[in-house]
Amino acid sequence: MLMNGKQYRESLKKMRPNIYKWGKLIEDVTTHPATRLHVDSVAHSYDMCFDEEKKHIYTNKSHLTGEVVHRWNALCQTVEDQVGNADMKRAQYRVSGTCQGATCAGWTGLNVLHAVTFEMDQDLGTNYHERLQKYFRYVEDNGLALAGAITDAKGNRSMKPSQQENKDLNLHVKEVRDDGVVIRGYKIQICGVAASHEIIVVPGMGYKESEKDFCFAAAIPRDAEGLTCVETRRPSDNRDEEDGWDAPKVGNITQSYLIFDDVFVPNDRIFMNGEFKYTGNVIGYFAAIYRAAIGACVAGQGDVMAGAAIGMARANGLSQKPFQEKLNQMAINNEITYGLGLGAMLKGKQHPSKLFVPNPLLAHVNKTQVGSLPYTTKVIAQDISGGIAETGCMPSYLDFQSEEYGKHLLEALSAGTDGESRARLARLVEWLTVGGGIPGCMHGGGSPDGARLVVRAFTRWEDYVNDAIRIAGVKGEIAEPPKPEKK
Amino acid sequence: MLMNGKQYRESLKKMRPNIYKWGKLIEDVTTHPATRLHVDSVAHSYDMCFDEEKKHIYTNKSHLTGEVVHRWNALCQTVEDQVGNADMKRAQYRVSGTCQGATCAGWTGLNVLHAVTFEMDQDLGTNYHERLQKYFRYVEDNGLALAGAITDAKGNRSMKPSQQENKDLNLHVKEVRDDGVVIRGYKIQICGVAASHEIIVVPGMGYKESEKDFCFAAAIPRDAEGLTCVETRRPSDNRDEEDGWDAPKVGNITQSYLIFDDVFVPNDRIFMNGEFKYTGNVIGYFAAIYRAAIGACVAGQGDVMAGAAIGMARANGLSQKPFQEKLNQMAINNEITYGLGLGAMLKGKQHPSKLFVPNPLLAHVNKTQVGSLPYTTKVIAQDISGGIAETGCMPSYLDFQSEEYGKHLLEALSAGTDGESRARLARLVEWLTVGGGIPGCMHGGGSPDGARLVVRAFTRWEDYVNDAIRIAGVKGEIAEPPKPEKK
Amino acid sequence: MLMNGKQYRESLKKMRPNIYKWGKLIEDVTTHPATRLHVDSVAHSYDMCFDEEKKHIYTNKSHLTGEVVHRWNALCQTVEDQVGNADMKRAQYRVSGTCQGATCAGWTGLNVLHAVTFEMDQDLGTNYHERLQKYFRYVEDNGLALAGAITDAKGNRSMKPSQQENKDLNLHVKEVRDDGVVIRGYKIQICGVAASHEIIVVPGMGYKESEKDFCFAAAIPRDAEGLTCVETRRPSDNRDEEDGWDAPKVGNITQSYLIFDDVFVPNDRIFMNGEFKYTGNVIGYFAAIYRAAIGACVAGQGDVMAGAAIGMARANGLSQKPFQEKLNQMAINNEITYGLGLGAMLKGKQHPSKLFVPNPLLAHVNKTQVGSLPYTTKVIAQDISGGIAETGCMPSYLDFQSEEYGKHLLEALSAGTDGESRARLARLVEWLTVGGGIPGCMHGGGSPDGARLVVRAFTRWEDYVNDAIRIAGVKGEIAEPPKPEKK
Amino acid sequence: MLMNGKQYRESLKKMRPNIYKWGKLIEDVTTHPATRLHVDSVAHSYDMCFDEEKKHIYTNKSHLTGEVVHRWNALCQTVEDQVGNADMKRAQYRVSGTCQGATCAGWTGLNVLHAVTFEMDQDLGTNYHERLQKYFRYVEDNGLALAGAITDAKGNRSMKPSQQENKDLNLHVKEVRDDGVVIRGYKIQICGVAASHEIIVVPGMGYKESEKDFCFAAAIPRDAEGLTCVETRRPSDNRDEEDGWDAPKVGNITQSYLIFDDVFVPNDRIFMNGEFKYTGNVIGYFAAIYRAAIGACVAGQGDVMAGAAIGMARANGLSQKPFQEKLNQMAINNEITYGLGLGAMLKGKQHPSKLFVPNPLLAHVNKTQVGSLPYTTKVIAQDISGGIAETGCMPSYLDFQSEEYGKHLLEALSAGTDGESRARLARLVEWLTVGGGIPGCMHGGGSPDGARLVVRAFTRWEDYVNDAIRIAGVKGEIAEPPKPEKK
Repeated sequence: MLMNGKQYRESLKKMRPNIYKWGKLIEDVTTHPATRLHVDSVAHSYDMCFDEEKKHIYTNKSHLTGEVVHRWNALCQTVEDQVGNADMKRAQYRVSGTCQGATCAGWTGLNVLHAVTFEMDQDLGTNYHERLQKYFRYVEDNGLALAGAITDAKGNRSMKPSQQENKDLNLHVKEVRDDGVVIRGYKIQICGVAASHEIIVVPGMGYKESEKDFCFAAAIPRDAEGLTCVETRRPSDNRDEEDGWDAPKVGNITQSYLIFDDVFVPNDRIFMNGEFKYTGNVIGYFAAIYRAAIGACVAGQGDVMAGAAIGMARANGLSQKPFQEKLNQMAINNEITYGLGLGAMLKGKQHPSKLFVPNPLLAHVNKTQVGSLPYTTKVIAQDISGGIAETGCMPSYLDFQSEEYGKHLLEALSAGTDGESRARLARLVEWLTVGGGIPGCMHGGGSPDGARLVVRAFTRWEDYVNDAIRIAGVKGEIAEPPKPEKK
Repeated sequence: MLMNGKQYRESLKKMRPNIYKWGKLIEDVTTHPATRLHVDSVAHSYDMCFDEEKKHIYTNKSHLTGEVVHRWNALCQTVEDQVGNADMKRAQYRVSGTCQGATCAGWTGLNVLHAVTFEMDQDLGTNYHERLQKYFRYVEDNGLALAGAITDAKGNRSMKPSQQENKDLNLHVKEVRDDGVVIRGYKIQICGVAASHEIIVVPGMGYKESEKDFCFAAAIPRDAEGLTCVETRRPSDNRDEEDGWDAPKVGNITQSYLIFDDVFVPNDRIFMNGEFKYTGNVIGYFAAIYRAAIGACVAGQGDVMAGAAIGMARANGLSQKPFQEKLNQMAINNEITYGLGLGAMLKGKQHPSKLFVPNPLLAHVNKTQVGSLPYTTKVIAQDISGGIAETGCMPSYLDFQSEEYGKHLLEALSAGTDGESRARLARLVEWLTVGGGIPGCMHGGGSPDGARLVVRAFTRWEDYVNDAIRIAGVKGEIAEPPKPEKK
Repeated sequence: MLMNGKQYRESLKKMRPNIYKWGKLIEDVTTHPATRLHVDSVAHSYDMCFDEEKKHIYTNKSHLTGEVVHRWNALCQTVEDQVGNADMKRAQYRVSGTCQGATCAGWTGLNVLHAVTFEMDQDLGTNYHERLQKYFRYVEDNGLALAGAITDAKGNRSMKPSQQENKDLNLHVKEVRDDGVVIRGYKIQICGVAASHEIIVVPGMGYKESEKDFCFAAAIPRDAEGLTCVETRRPSDNRDEEDGWDAPKVGNITQSYLIFDDVFVPNDRIFMNGEFKYTGNVIGYFAAIYRAAIGACVAGQGDVMAGAAIGMARANGLSQKPFQEKLNQMAINNEITYGLGLGAMLKGKQHPSKLFVPNPLLAHVNKTQVGSLPYTTKVIAQDISGGIAETGCMPSYLDFQSEEYGKHLLEALSAGTDGESRARLARLVEWLTVGGGIPGCMHGGGSPDGARLVVRAFTRWEDYVNDAIRIAGVKGEIAEPPKPEKK
Repeated sequence: MLMNGKQYRESLKKMRPNIYKWGKLIEDVTTHPATRLHVDSVAHSYDMCFDEEKKHIYTNKSHLTGEVVHRWNALCQTVEDQVGNADMKRAQYRVSGTCQGATCAGWTGLNVLHAVTFEMDQDLGTNYHERLQKYFRYVEDNGLALAGAITDAKGNRSMKPSQQENKDLNLHVKEVRDDGVVIRGYKIQICGVAASHEIIVVPGMGYKESEKDFCFAAAIPRDAEGLTCVETRRPSDNRDEEDGWDAPKVGNITQSYLIFDDVFVPNDRIFMNGEFKYTGNVIGYFAAIYRAAIGACVAGQGDVMAGAAIGMARANGLSQKPFQEKLNQMAINNEITYGLGLGAMLKGKQHPSKLFVPNPLLAHVNKTQVGSLPYTTKVIAQDISGGIAETGCMPSYLDFQSEEYGKHLLEALSAGTDGESRARLARLVEWLTVGGGIPGCMHGGGSPDGARLVVRAFTRWEDYVNDAIRIAGVKGEIAEPPKPEKK
């Protein structure tokens, strides 16, 4: 079933309020200033499913029914489906300038669980896959927006979950009942929660047997009893909540800290419970899909940065030309992360469950670029735009309204266009580069260092050494030295 | 005369309130939340002049009296004086993590005018230098903090000041009287105004005769009649003005938009008025001094970033070791901008007026690095620190105070240290990299593109071509092609 | 028809000697030290067509007959065909460490002409496409190796071909006869000529009507009457021609200067003659195919560099571990150019003639990376390998043979392995980074600056500006300033 | 005493031939094609001591006699002396495009031993310093050129010298006699030997007591009995030894492998023998001096690369203008390494012995840049110059002489200038970037990784952490985690 934006907003309004910010409960996420912009951008995606020109971007065919469903409700079965996901993300970023959250990680988790439940059922005779298929159908039928919760609070990084003093630092199964389980603990930095109907919970990393209690996957309603969500404070969120032009008002993203305080999950919503051997695949498939597509996200934001930089040049009274080489570099950065992600998809493979999984080596290489190239793009945007954009070095919107001196400020800001237009564009660049528009591309979905570990693992070093030895014509032995003995 | 911090604060309190933020007048800059932190950091420098271990950093000898004066009141006569300035700046950044403003650009302007008034008097028989020396003595005797106002609002960047529709876009002489002049127009993005006693105004760039009205230099009391200052809205300034730990509270910097609405300047405070031929030297000397020293500023902030990154690693439960190569890169970036500035000083020369001017080629090369390396340093800081520092992805201070769920948040943040300590460090990294601690190093004091123009102008290209031709043994002609004729 | 390496060598031996080096005629390219290694590497590809494990890499299906043919004889019809080409190139580089020439540009030219002759015939009623199909069949039937000649000598870069003093600086039609044409002029830096049977000649760039005489495409036997080929002197070619280990001896690449001194071309081998409007498409398709695949070439060489660097670490007595982060960066560089090329393929389209053409924007973005990332990879290889590899700082092979002191040298070089093995590996690194193994990836197939022009042309700047304006909420006008009037 | 170039050449001719290349003895280094160009460039420095305009660059005052001596014979006592050394090096590179060897490392070693012998005498009551002063005077009186031998063959990098199977892998004292010692072993990759009179030998690294036998410093005549020097094979050395223009013929550098086969050293030439505690200072002072100055070397070569790139642009028929931004980057790279070295000097200190030692932290930071920025400069030089320069993709000089086709080649190469001039410039760029002109700046004088270790050691990490903790307002404990226990 397809919902439009209005229906989507209404469905959110019906939910139990359990999201907080600034120490207070948010009664209605669709109108509260802290969450409204986020809901707006997701609502836009719902609306676009009915737009003749855009609906091919925002919808796909269900693998269950063959019907048209929201792209964020459909299983990725082919390389084209993965490309479609990437292209939707680039389009979404171009709409609001930043991430949309509720159409991304939760859906990815659902796709991943499609494959991993298939594997578990094959190997273990469980019936997780059937449950998952039913839940998948439920998501499609109701056109849901899903957040995806992976990251645990973790605690001390040099210890495993089971070694932490406080077990709650990682979400875990506290009690098993006949009809379900009780879970407890913290998932943090979860993107898109305020705009979602449900949360797909998966294990935070690949675990061994000792961490069995933390090997848990399920679908949890966002307003489940016992679940409290606390919104994070992002750069420039005060401005978002104000009137005026000190931040753009088109759309935004939010993140939550999830406090699971003994939340009951019924059996038909549980997709993994203790099967530690499969947690590695959850993370592996998730990362491959997510990191192949994330290049499109930052490319989309990069497109907006390029446009904003050209806009600022013009607002300053200058043409695009003297900045062309820098603009080219912005475009190159954008296309690298986008195109490399596509390359990962092209070398991907279909899983026996029908899920199409991009090539992990190329996907993780892409993550290393997603964690670095956008920073260059931002610096160029600031470079072209000038000082008022670099740190937003302008008086506040309120000052511009001053009867005493407001018109002087507007005058002082006028250049290639009127003062207000120039101020708005400068605030956009500020927001994109050092404000609330930053999508957290470095650590979001895992760190570049983690990606490098995967690059290391998937690269055929010994083959390359053998090539070199053969080409060099070496006849002697070239061996790794023995590890030094510990004393 | 040396003032201490308390005396400095009291001297500021006596001034006429003419600074605004959020559309309202700031009655007392030493206590108002928008300016208090800035005053605190300058006050610290005043206090350090009485600290046995630090006073060599914060004081120097007067060229007029031989007495010990604040370093920001003394003429730079030797390479050691320039190094002293750089070392003070690095130390100041290490105190508060950011710029201090009121001990920098105004003092640099005063030094520059020392040389340029000398030149004008030599060439034109004016008595600007004598006036300037008297004013210099006045500054020393009163231990003043000076802001420096260079940047005009400028308007359309493809037109000269005289071509702008609105003449006020650049500060100019509106009326000449017997006892002084009336000036009018906008100087914007002026650093350190709220913590200064006076403002040294100099021309915004090198001008030709047509721009004579804009060739004006003078010393203006910050609270002069007709002058209105409007503070800019920097990233995370809301947090500065709140209680709690969502931003550091040790010190900060502010910038102002200056509205000169027919401000009278008496003759003995005027140091240039229409002598357009000398504006190039004002800019040239200013840039050479400023850009040789600014490498120390960003190095000082880089030191704090390195420290904050190590702190975050530990707060995450990790040791410094796995990050050592990245930390080394941070240190390398810091020392490049610091050391290259020193190199510019070492190849500098003493002006006939006794002012010591660093080598402009090396100073401008340094500016290109100051406008790029700190961005790498910031990215590394975020890389080491993890997701909560990258975008400050944590709930607000107010949420941590919640009786309902605050203790859960503290728990969730605890890792290698308690939750509050970790949150504070993460907020510091956020503030340094995408918050109010960003010093505007790219466009502050002029853009990298401008610096590249100077690099081009000061590089001996033809000498190098001739070397190459000789070494290559070329006998034929190697000439620039004729410019294509315009049709 | 598939040839094996032996048959290939024999077919080359039968050709008229018309290739020179060091001022002398090369009688037999299969045995002459200047060309032998190049022929060896192409012969290896011929042999691999009969290798059970590798033949899927080196062969493809004919679009004409459906038979298995050499991959360098087959039309690319699908994205898989383009990927196959890329994967063959990466494999070929891993065999010899460098380019193979005779299986690349000529074949690309043939593919491109397949599409462009189709267009011309559609638009103009010519019968070029039929001729081309016949020639394609001839190539397949004889299993030919083809060089591709694009680059003209060009002369003064600020003038068009028709404006040059010497018309021969660009290959042109000198005389039209009933049965064919006479061509004249210079094509230079043509890769793989010595190992090829024929040369596919195409126009050097997109031309307008004034350059009609230079709009010429044809297939020319390498040993055609009137054609003289002069081999270029590449770094370390002396070592290739010597005995000993001062350069690897597995395979190599050569380039030629082609002097067309009134060469007659019969009509059935002419595929364009004056149709200037189609030259842009020749270059456009060529670049899209070539630059999508070239990322695989440099990735393959990068693989060997990674292997050689690990080999050198071990030869120095060290393990791979302390260099792992650097090695990861090598792998990342390799996979970026490889994967981004794949991305270009995935976003490609099938031409009405059935040729599959990669996405030009992504292909040209890839070229910018191919022209820069391998340099980083080389620097890392030298960094890991140490001083003897950086500049090959070792005595010559002849010195190692000295009865007087040779054994001392072998002793001095021994470390983690024997002295000879270490010397050989160090020479390989030297050869790959500053020797004959450098594939000319920066300017080969056109310069990065040209690629940037294409990036500029294919990027939708105005769309991005409009996104930014919308998100910023700008209401005023943001327009390119008018061009300044010329005086 | 000052020698001129002629006297210098004659002094070399008188020495015993003990240098080999290609397996054969070089009878006269001043005329043999393998060493002649190197001698030429050093001779040029000797001549410049008598040139009115240049002699201030090439001479200095003796600390022993106050007389004018060759700069490479004088002790560095002040920051100006160190700057003079840097400026001479930049000038020398601009003469020949590369390193000069015999006026550098040996002189540096002599300076370092001046300080370290002073320390030893102070601490141990030895009389090394007196010996050294006498030898210093001898060098000055005879105007000698000195090579400096630090690097040992080393063998397996994971073992100390005393642990190697073959003790000869590191130079060591084999026998102590009353009148001197007998030394034995290999010093390799020693720069400038063929153009030197004597070799200053110092320990290869800082050693502990177990390595006492390797703690040896002395002055050895280059033609000492028992010493055999074998020249290394550098890229493009064949071309240097030929006629023609395939390599520049102005000057060059050479490196040797030194085989000490029981060489007797009399006592008055020994400056360290077993005093292991002082080897760290030898390396420390050497690196500080060498790495502060080496930035000037690569800057000088960078100057020539910038000139060659402009020359190539013109030879291609293009003006400098479209490449200006790239040329600026070349200049910036050059000035960074030059200026940062100056910064290291400015923060240096005078040793009690009067030797002036640059700041080690900044000197080592400079080394990291010297080991990376020149690579960028090279890539830009190739980028601007085009394909014929990138890999020297042109026929050999011999082909240009061919009666048959030589004139065609000259024609084909002509563009903005005649074909020969363009070929010569292209060969220069090739030589500078991938040929014999590469100065080995990455590993020469030690590796960047070693420099990074020093950066780590000299950076005040804990101070920076404490700054961050104070600014962040952290009250909890932020400590390095305990090292994990070994099991």
